[in-house]
Amino acid sequence: MKELFYQRDVISILDFNRESLEVLFEYADRMLKHIDTKLSLLNGKVVSLAFFEPSTRTRLSFEVAAKKLGADVISIVGEEASSVSKGESLADTIRMLDSYSNAIVIRHRYEGVAKYAAEIAEHPVINAGDGKQHHPTQTMIDLYTVKKLFNDIDGLVYGVLGDLRYGRATTSFLYGLSLFKPKKVYLISPESLRVREEVLHVLKERNIVFEERRNLEDVIEELDVLYVIRIQKERFPDPLEYEKVKGSYKVTLETLKKGKKNLKILHPLPKVDEIDERIDYTSYAAYFTQAKYGVPVRMALLALIFGVEP
Amino acid sequence: MKELFYQRDVISILDFNRESLEVLFEYADRMLKHIDTKLSLLNGKVVSLAFFEPSTRTRLSFEVAAKKLGADVISIVGEEASSVSKGESLADTIRMLDSYSNAIVIRHRYEGVAKYAAEIAEHPVINAGDGKQHHPTQTMIDLYTVKKLFNDIDGLVYGVLGDLRYGRATTSFLYGLSLFKPKKVYLISPESLRVREEVLHVLKERNIVFEERRNLEDVIEELDVLYVIRIQKERFPDPLEYEKVKGSYKVTLETLKKGKKNLKILHPLPKVDEIDERIDYTSYAAYFTQAKYGVPVRMALLALIFGVEP
Amino acid sequence: MKELFYQRDVISILDFNRESLEVLFEYADRMLKHIDTKLSLLNGKVVSLAFFEPSTRTRLSFEVAAKKLGADVISIVGEEASSVSKGESLADTIRMLDSYSNAIVIRHRYEGVAKYAAEIAEHPVINAGDGKQHHPTQTMIDLYTVKKLFNDIDGLVYGVLGDLRYGRATTSFLYGLSLFKPKKVYLISPESLRVREEVLHVLKERNIVFEERRNLEDVIEELDVLYVIRIQKERFPDPLEYEKVKGSYKVTLETLKKGKKNLKILHPLPKVDEIDERIDYTSYAAYFTQAKYGVPVRMALLALIFGVEP
Repeated sequence: MKELFYQRDVISILDFNRESLEVLFEYADRMLKHIDTKLSLLNGKVVSLAFFEPSTRTRLSFEVAAKKLGADVISIVGEEASSVSKGESLADTIRMLDSYSNAIVIRHRYEGVAKYAAEIAEHPVINAGDGKQHHPTQTMIDLYTVKKLFNDIDGLVYGVLGDLRYGRATTSFLYGLSLFKPKKVYLISPESLRVREEVLHVLKERNIVFEERRNLEDVIEELDVLYVIRIQKERFPDPLEYEKVKGSYKVTLETLKKGKKNLKILHPLPKVDEIDERIDYTSYAAYFTQAKYGVPVRMALLALIFGVEP
Repeated sequence: MKELFYQRDVISILDFNRESLEVLFEYADRMLKHIDTKLSLLNGKVVSLAFFEPSTRTRLSFEVAAKKLGADVISIVGEEASSVSKGESLADTIRMLDSYSNAIVIRHRYEGVAKYAAEIAEHPVINAGDGKQHHPTQTMIDLYTVKKLFNDIDGLVYGVLGDLRYGRATTSFLYGLSLFKPKKVYLISPESLRVREEVLHVLKERNIVFEERRNLEDVIEELDVLYVIRIQKERFPDPLEYEKVKGSYKVTLETLKKGKKNLKILHPLPKVDEIDERIDYTSYAAYFTQAKYGVPVRMALLALIFGVEP
Repeated sequence: MKELFYQRDVISILDFNRESLEVLFEYADRMLKHIDTKLSLLNGKVVSLAFFEPSTRTRLSFEVAAKKLGADVISIVGEEASSVSKGESLADTIRMLDSYSNAIVIRHRYEGVAKYAAEIAEHPVINAGDGKQHHPTQTMIDLYTVKKLFNDIDGLVYGVLGDLRYGRATTSFLYGLSLFKPKKVYLISPESLRVREEVLHVLKERNIVFEERRNLEDVIEELDVLYVIRIQKERFPDPLEYEKVKGSYKVTLETLKKGKKNLKILHPLPKVDEIDERIDYTSYAAYFTQAKYGVPVRMALLALIFGVEP
């Protein structure tokens, strides 16, 4: 299953299957063991980080992952990245990075940019989030976290809460779950931020048992994993509408106490105010651990892409 | 005395004593000897630089220091740092850096942020300047420079000139001096920019002989060390007031010639126009040497924090 | 000829001669062979990148070059670089970098800044482009590319097309050619963007056979190498004037087909729309290869400056 990674582009989590993800998780376990060692597996390799949209967490964890493996890293970020693309075509910018480095990690606000970059570049391109649908490395981390917490990804009841319409982390996570056998998936969002049809289509096609809901309270008792992302107030057509429903989308300690003791909350971070701060200090909060796994999982992915073994 | 450093936060110079600083200086001497060697003492370690307020000199010298010891470095700087903190809580940003790295160097315009970060982070936090009071690593460099120039920190007459009210480098330097036995300290500033009471309190408590003055000329003959920081014109309530006194706070070659031949001027830099440019080329100017010591002193500090020996 | 490089500043291509450039090219060949190896030739050295004017390509290729040789790199870039220089004198900024690093690579919009920096710094200063005349490392890459393509720089017919008045890459390239024996050089530009007199003076003095032209079509049949840079519309005093002539300065596939089969197009990049995109996919396009040579040529230069042998 390593061949699904070797010198390959990473555009969507749907490019993978559960067997290949299990290889990845096994590599991540090994990385965790050497997490404070400087490895020399990627000595002489250069990894480019092209962040046309800002993302401190994803960028820094890729940077740490590449450096811990012995690679050098170059970056174009934010302002600079956008002024680059103003001057020259995106294709030429990608060609430049392709000629200076051995892999390109790219984030962009527009859907399809990673795939386009992959067509131009000779070296592997890793999608660090583009558009509202794909963020495969985030999903690898999310699933790895579930695996570490529950020893299994199958057979659990998942709630996915927030802006399911525009959130790329949740969409990608749902695609990722569809490679496994969850017992049930609850999709919890306001009407106007429901999951898009194309996503439901993928879930159906892969026989995922799911149900759409409007309210966390109604399903809290059943959940093993609650995946939360931000609901942006400004996406509600009517601000009054938001005021009416916001209680359903802000996770409180009171709501959690109605659920399972072992319930775990995931969040791709950054979070703003959708999770009651007191939860940070409880055993429900798995999101800081999840963030921490960003480094070993991305190390594992880079190792597999370059065909080196930890 | 190494235990004052090992895996400890560095928030204020007052957390240390002279014995521990002497250990630091001895380490810095050893670092100076290998200054052009890439050491591997911190291989596998990652140092985060979180500069919420810009500071090229402090940031770059920390970066060089960490890299020369073999550590990898990740940074969030300026614009990006502030947009991070806009989105998510400072606590979450610190947690992120804490999970990707083995130490966090932080600069922030608000007093107490370094201490707050240290409470959140599991790894050591180093204050690279916060608020108007603490900048412990600058003071370590300042005192090390005095030691190298005069072979001793005790027994000298110091003048500290400039905005003593808001200047964090001077406040921290005064705290640092209070750990030693200066013969006398002159505090030279306009009335409106006098040293704050809490600082005078520390000096008194530690039996430092000091005197407040308004004019450099009056004391120039006695000084061994003159520590200068910028006086910002805009801090004068009345610009005419500034015009009247500015002669007293711009250091000229003429004034220096009335002092000791061996007088040395320190300045944390950057300087703007508070020191006559001709002085740059005289033996009075110790500030470029002082800047240079930024690297070995910060190397020494990192080595002590990580418990490795050069 | 290595002594023309060892611990020397690199300000203008005219500081070199053809023998020294041939040594450089030979080093670059050797670098190409180890391009995917992490060398340790510059272990313990730090290279500063001071980009007061943005330049992703030049900056990143210097960064990769330095890192591949084992050096550490620190950077001040764009916004930050300009705010630095706002606060303190350029001289003090240079002194800071000089005390933290073993070489300074500098780019600045004003002519003469690299030379000024070189006078202040004790360590070598490399001009990465200043003003409208000098960009010596770009020219080294350009000439190396010609050498690799034609096995020789002498005896070829060159066309140099675009804004020859303000373009520093083309001016520097013409200076570089003047160290060799081109058969002929056509200088093709609109009247208002003609090569400046001082440049023609250098060409004459060095017995370069050249001719000024207004139109690419007239000379296309003779050319072996066509060096293109951007013509900025806004430099035309009258926009209508631009509309009239733009056909002559946008390189089309139709025009190229009238020329030699083996014609090669160079461009320092980024390009905007001065070259028909279809050309990117033809064998005329040598500019992506040229960009790629940025790394080995800059590695060769750094190795020669530090006196290490690949």
